[in-house]
Amino acid sequence: MVKEAKDAKEAKAPKSEQTRTLILETALRLFEERGYDKTTMRAIAQEAGVSVGNAYYYFTGKDALVQSFYDRLAAEHEAAVKPVLEGDKDLAVRIRGVLLSWLDVAEPYRRFATQFFKNAADPESPLSPFSEESVAAREAAISIHERCLRGSSTRTDPDMTDVLPQLMWLIQMGLVLFWVYDRTEGAERSRRLVERTAPIGARAIALSRFRVLRPLVRQIHDVLADFLPGSVKQPTTAQPGREKA
Amino acid sequence: MVKEAKDAKEAKAPKSEQTRTLILETALRLFEERGYDKTTMRAIAQEAGVSVGNAYYYFTGKDALVQSFYDRLAAEHEAAVKPVLEGDKDLAVRIRGVLLSWLDVAEPYRRFATQFFKNAADPESPLSPFSEESVAAREAAISIHERCLRGSSTRTDPDMTDVLPQLMWLIQMGLVLFWVYDRTEGAERSRRLVERTAPIGARAIALSRFRVLRPLVRQIHDVLADFLPGSVKQPTTAQPGREKA
Repeated sequence: MVKEAKDAKEAKAPKSEQTRTLILETALRLFEERGYDKTTMRAIAQEAGVSVGNAYYYFTGKDALVQSFYDRLAAEHEAAVKPVLEGDKDLAVRIRGVLLSWLDVAEPYRRFATQFFKNAADPESPLSPFSEESVAAREAAISIHERCLRGSSTRTDPDMTDVLPQLMWLIQMGLVLFWVYDRTEGAERSRRLVERTAPIGARAIALSRFRVLRPLVRQIHDVLADFLPGSVKQPTTAQPGREKA
Repeated sequence: MVKEAKDAKEAKAPKSEQTRTLILETALRLFEERGYDKTTMRAIAQEAGVSVGNAYYYFTGKDALVQSFYDRLAAEHEAAVKPVLEGDKDLAVRIRGVLLSWLDVAEPYRRFATQFFKNAADPESPLSPFSEESVAAREAAISIHERCLRGSSTRTDPDMTDVLPQLMWLIQMGLVLFWVYDRTEGAERSRRLVERTAPIGARAIALSRFRVLRPLVRQIHDVLADFLPGSVKQPTTAQPGREKA
């Protein structure tokens, strides 16, 4: 293990990156084919043509492989969403672009995601999107929604600025849930759901500044601030009497 | 199922009902203690002190046991919610009562639910709340929301009448998700979420009749009608070009 770690460091960076990618892709394929629970690190190493020690050098275990998959998906989404964030200022177009590009990026992994979903849904699991371990992927996703809103021509209610990106992320998680259940070719139905809901979301955000809606918006804000899962941006981390969901 | 129903009817109701309950309760306890996957029908029969054949006479398998648990929970909620539905006409009070009584009824099963949740979240599973197999429990829950709305003094937008009960049910499923992740004593945090969101829901429903909101409400209605999972009340069951989620 130690020797291998040294060897790996001495090797050219691209080579180790290649091995890492090879192990990750082999793992995703085996998870999909054999199921997550039934796939061992040994089988992954064997199938990838590396030693078990080498596999463990790159990934501490199966959970780390999935976490790495989350990070990869986040990075791919970040790249795919760039033209959307730099493009049209219309909020509906932007929300639509952010969500559709996520569906594009995630599509190759849908079979794995469907099969794997029940593990991610387990509240005890570090692979849950709400877990502390998933904080990097979650923050990356929230940051995309923040830029989506900030770059739009729609002025959002200033009271809502702190919670809206997280709310959008939560809605995105709802879309992921829908997508995992979606059996249509190319996730056609999920795409149509995005096409239909993006204008609604944009309109609701624009309307939230109406006077008649102020009390409602205020109430919604306060509930979101107190209850949103993965509230990574709360000013104080230890608030007495406020436990984590 | 039909055969069983007939056979069960021929047996004396009280005794067979007792055995059935005993098997179900033993199963829930073992699922909680040992995990759902690791518990066999044989172990359930043994622990309940009945023959394996007898256990299978009452339940075709573990899935049937869980389905039966869903039905039981639905029946207990129906009983608990009666005073709420016959009581106060204020919509916020009614929504709050419906959801809090569900939390009351479900609390004894929370440990099992938390442990079992990942199975229910599996899109392939007949135990998913969106599956065809869960239709009875789902319809029972939707019917409660329908009566909750109908008996209130808040006049709902007539355009929304057909989708609101299903939307409320979907929100209830969101609460179940929150509750499964809730680690607080007596689901204190879930209860507070209900206290805080019930007035918001009631206010949003009341506001949905405002003129300025008409186009938004119309759009929301159409998306809900097309995409709500478990749309059991769609007038036609086979609509060309409309696949199931």
